[in-house]
Amino acid sequence: MLSPADRALAALLPAGVLRDPGPAYTEEPRGRWQGQAGLVAAPRDTYECAAIIRACAAARVAVVPRGGGTGLVGGQVMPDGPAPLVLSLERLTAIRDLFPDEGVMIADAGVTLQAARQAAADVGRQFPLSLASQGTAQIGGVLSTNAGGVNVLRYGNARALCLGIEAVLPSGEVMRDLKRLRKDNTGYDLRDLLIGAEGTLGIITAASLVLAPVPAETGVAMLVVDSPKAALSLLSLAQARMAGGVTAFELISGQSLHFLDAAFPDMRQPFADRPDWLVLIEVGLPAGLPADAALEGLFIAGSEAGLVHDGVIAQSGQQAAGLWALREHIPLANRHVGAIASHDISLPLSRVAGFIDDAGAMLAGFGDMRVNCFGHLGDGNLHYNLFPAPGRTRDDYVDIRRDLSRRIHEMVVAQGGSFSAEHGVGRLKAADLARWADPVRLAAMRAIKGALDPLGIMNPGAVLA
Amino acid sequence: MLSPADRALAALLPAGVLRDPGPAYTEEPRGRWQGQAGLVAAPRDTYECAAIIRACAAARVAVVPRGGGTGLVGGQVMPDGPAPLVLSLERLTAIRDLFPDEGVMIADAGVTLQAARQAAADVGRQFPLSLASQGTAQIGGVLSTNAGGVNVLRYGNARALCLGIEAVLPSGEVMRDLKRLRKDNTGYDLRDLLIGAEGTLGIITAASLVLAPVPAETGVAMLVVDSPKAALSLLSLAQARMAGGVTAFELISGQSLHFLDAAFPDMRQPFADRPDWLVLIEVGLPAGLPADAALEGLFIAGSEAGLVHDGVIAQSGQQAAGLWALREHIPLANRHVGAIASHDISLPLSRVAGFIDDAGAMLAGFGDMRVNCFGHLGDGNLHYNLFPAPGRTRDDYVDIRRDLSRRIHEMVVAQGGSFSAEHGVGRLKAADLARWADPVRLAAMRAIKGALDPLGIMNPGAVLA
Repeated sequence: MLSPADRALAALLPAGVLRDPGPAYTEEPRGRWQGQAGLVAAPRDTYECAAIIRACAAARVAVVPRGGGTGLVGGQVMPDGPAPLVLSLERLTAIRDLFPDEGVMIADAGVTLQAARQAAADVGRQFPLSLASQGTAQIGGVLSTNAGGVNVLRYGNARALCLGIEAVLPSGEVMRDLKRLRKDNTGYDLRDLLIGAEGTLGIITAASLVLAPVPAETGVAMLVVDSPKAALSLLSLAQARMAGGVTAFELISGQSLHFLDAAFPDMRQPFADRPDWLVLIEVGLPAGLPADAALEGLFIAGSEAGLVHDGVIAQSGQQAAGLWALREHIPLANRHVGAIASHDISLPLSRVAGFIDDAGAMLAGFGDMRVNCFGHLGDGNLHYNLFPAPGRTRDDYVDIRRDLSRRIHEMVVAQGGSFSAEHGVGRLKAADLARWADPVRLAAMRAIKGALDPLGIMNPGAVLA
Repeated sequence: MLSPADRALAALLPAGVLRDPGPAYTEEPRGRWQGQAGLVAAPRDTYECAAIIRACAAARVAVVPRGGGTGLVGGQVMPDGPAPLVLSLERLTAIRDLFPDEGVMIADAGVTLQAARQAAADVGRQFPLSLASQGTAQIGGVLSTNAGGVNVLRYGNARALCLGIEAVLPSGEVMRDLKRLRKDNTGYDLRDLLIGAEGTLGIITAASLVLAPVPAETGVAMLVVDSPKAALSLLSLAQARMAGGVTAFELISGQSLHFLDAAFPDMRQPFADRPDWLVLIEVGLPAGLPADAALEGLFIAGSEAGLVHDGVIAQSGQQAAGLWALREHIPLANRHVGAIASHDISLPLSRVAGFIDDAGAMLAGFGDMRVNCFGHLGDGNLHYNLFPAPGRTRDDYVDIRRDLSRRIHEMVVAQGGSFSAEHGVGRLKAADLARWADPVRLAAMRAIKGALDPLGIMNPGAVLA
C-alpha cells in the first residue's frame, strides 16, 4: 500500500518503471543497515532515468541510485529520514558499442562488470578492472565508487579506465559526454567529478571504457618473503625489471593462510609451512619474453638480494588460477571467522611496513586478537582486518571495536594515508570524512554539491553527512 | 605610475611580492594577444599566494595566474577589461620532497618541467611528461592545462601523473591535498577538477607527482608506412606485441620532412626519398628483452603484414636522439614557413584516417595550400596545420582562415573528436567551447565556477567566455 506522497510521486513517473520494492533493493552485503524504499523505479533508458529524477525533484523525494548493490560502505541504502525512491539501473544492460581497434567499449550503467569483461574478451581485448564481486557489481556502480581491485597497479582504478560518461544530473538533464578520446582538454573534468561521487552529484547511465590489449605473455608467481618491508623492496625490484609489466602485486599474511586452512581445508597451498608473508605477483609482458623466464629472473635477483626465500612459478593457466584462488578466497575465509573490524586503508609506500609494525604494537595494548593484513600492496592499499583471539568471539570485543578502528584510522591519517582506499565513503565513513578531510576541500565539496544539487535529492547522507 | 585602484590593491598585498610589470608577464608565444597587468605579484610561498588572492577578492580585481607563459591558447594573458593582477609562480621553485622508493616527488608550482624531470633522473626515476617547451613550462602550468606531449600513450597526460595538489581557492583559502597515495576514495575529485581548469577555479601551488621507473630497455625506430591507416594498423600490432611498452607513437608526414629540409638543410634525414608517411616509435621494455630485437620483430611482422616498407632502428642513444630531433624540429620548421591556421585536434582512433582523407578533400575546394599533419597518433591527437602554397604567403589566405578552421573543427566534432586535444581552451577557444560543448555539461561547468568563484576573479574570460 503506497503512502499518499508515494502515490503522488508514482503518478509523475514514466509508465512501467515501477518495481516491487523487495529486500533486494534495500540490503547491503554486510547487513549493517536496513535501507528503505518508498518506491523502486527501474528505467529502461536514459530518458526514463531523467524523467524519474525530474519527478523526484518536483516531489522533493530523495533518490538512492542502485547498481549491483555490492558496495561495502552503505552508499546504496538509506536507513533514515523520509523513504527515498530507489533508482535501479538493472534494466540498462546494453553494450552499446564495441570498437576493438580503438580499444573502447560503450556500456550502459547496468552492465555487470563480468559481462563487460566478457564482451572485451570476446573481441580479443581486456577490460582490466577485476573485483571479487564482479558477477554482480555494475559498471555504473564501479564508476560511481571509483572501484579498485587487483590490477590497479598497472591499469589504474575505474576512473583511469573511463574516457567519457553519460549522466543524468540532479536537475534531470542529461549530460552527454561519451567521448572515445585519449586526449581532450575542453573544459572542466566533470567526468572525474561524477566518478567517485557515489551518486550524490548525478547518475551515470553509460560510460565509454578503455579496453586494453591482452599482453602477449602472462605469468603468476607466489614468493615467500620475510616481511612487508622485504615485499616492498621486491616490488621495487620487480618494477625496475618489468617496465610496467607488473599487473598485480598482492600481499598475503600467514594469518590469511591459517584462515584459509580453517575455512577451506581442501584447498591446496603451495608452502607446507605456511610462511609469515607471501606475495602474489602477476606479470603481463611483451612477445619474445616468456613470463616464466622473467619471473625466474626476478626470483633469482630477489634471492640474491636476500628478499625472497622460496617461491613457486605457475607452469600453466590452471596453476596460475590456483594461486589466484588462494588470494581470492581470503575475504570468504575472513567471513568464516568473523571480523571484529575491517579497514580499507592506503599508505604512502614507504610508510606501509612501519605502519604494520606500529599498528601491531598498538593493538597489543588492547589485549589478544588476530590481525589479517593482506591486499594490494603494490598500491599501498591494505585490508587490515581484526579478528577475535582463538576461543573468543567478536562479541567479546564489542566495547572496544569503535576505539580500535578510530586508533587505526588515526595512525593511517597521521602517516598521510587514507581511511578509505577503494571502498569509498558512503554512509559508513561520512563522519570520518567530515573529521579528517582538509576543511577547505570539504567546504569546496559542499559548495559543488549545493551548486549541482540545490534541492539535495541525490543520495542524501552519502559522502557528505 | 600606478592607478589609484592599483595603489589601493598594492597596499593590501604582502610586502615584497610586487614585481616590475614588464612584457615578460603579458606576452604569449604566438603573439596573438597583448595582455595587460595592473600589478604583477610573485609570492614566495603558499601563504603569500593566498594573501594575494584575498586582497584581490577584497578589491574585486581579477587574477591572471602565470607559470612559464608557454600556453598556446591565451589562458595566461587578459587583453580586455580592467587590468588584472598577474600572479606569477616564478618564486615557488622548491622540490619539496623526493621519495624515490615510492615513486613520488612533491614540487612547487614554479618548478620548470625540465627541473622536475632532472630531479627525477637524479634519483634514478623518470617524470614522464615531455614537451617541447619543458625548459620554460612550469609544473603549475602543465597541471592547470593538463598538458600532454609525446609520452601520453604510455604514461597519460599531466592529470594521470598527479597524486595530489595544494591549491589556493578563489576564496583565498588553501586546500591541502598533497597525498602520495595511489588509491584514495574519500570524496569528490577536486584534484582533477582543478587540473585542466586553467586557473579559473584556483591556483595550484604544489603537486605530488608520479615518478615512474626507468624501463630496463629502451629503443627508437622510424618506420615508413603507406598511409595513416597503415600507421594505425601498425600501432595495433605494436601494442599487441609490446604489452604496454610503446611509450611514443608519432606520425610524421612527407610535408613535415620537406619543411625540415627547407628550414634545417643540414639536418640528416634517414630516408633519401622523403616518404609520404613515417612513424616514430619508442619502446620501453623489461630486462631480458633487448629493444632492438623487439623493434626488429615489429619491423618484420609489420613488413609481413604489408604495413611497413622501410625503416631504421637506432643503434645508439645518439641515433635515437637524432630521430627524435627530427620530430621535435617540426614545429620550428612550421614556424619557418608560417601557418595559415593550426589545429590541435583529437579523434577516435578508428576515425583518424578517414578524417585525414575527408579534410584533404574539403580543403581542396578552398584552393591551393599545403597541409602538415603530424603528431601523437597513438593518442589520436594530430596537429593539423595549414600552410600557403609555394610562392604564396599566409596573407593571401586571410579571408578564408576562419572559415577553414571552422570547417575543420566541424568535421572533427562530427566524428566525435575534440577541437582541443592538449592545448586547452584558454581565450582562443572559449567561443568554440560555448558552441560545441554539451549544453548540460557547460551549464554544470558554469554552476561550479559560480560556486567556487562567486566574485568571478579567477582568470575571467578563460575557458568560460
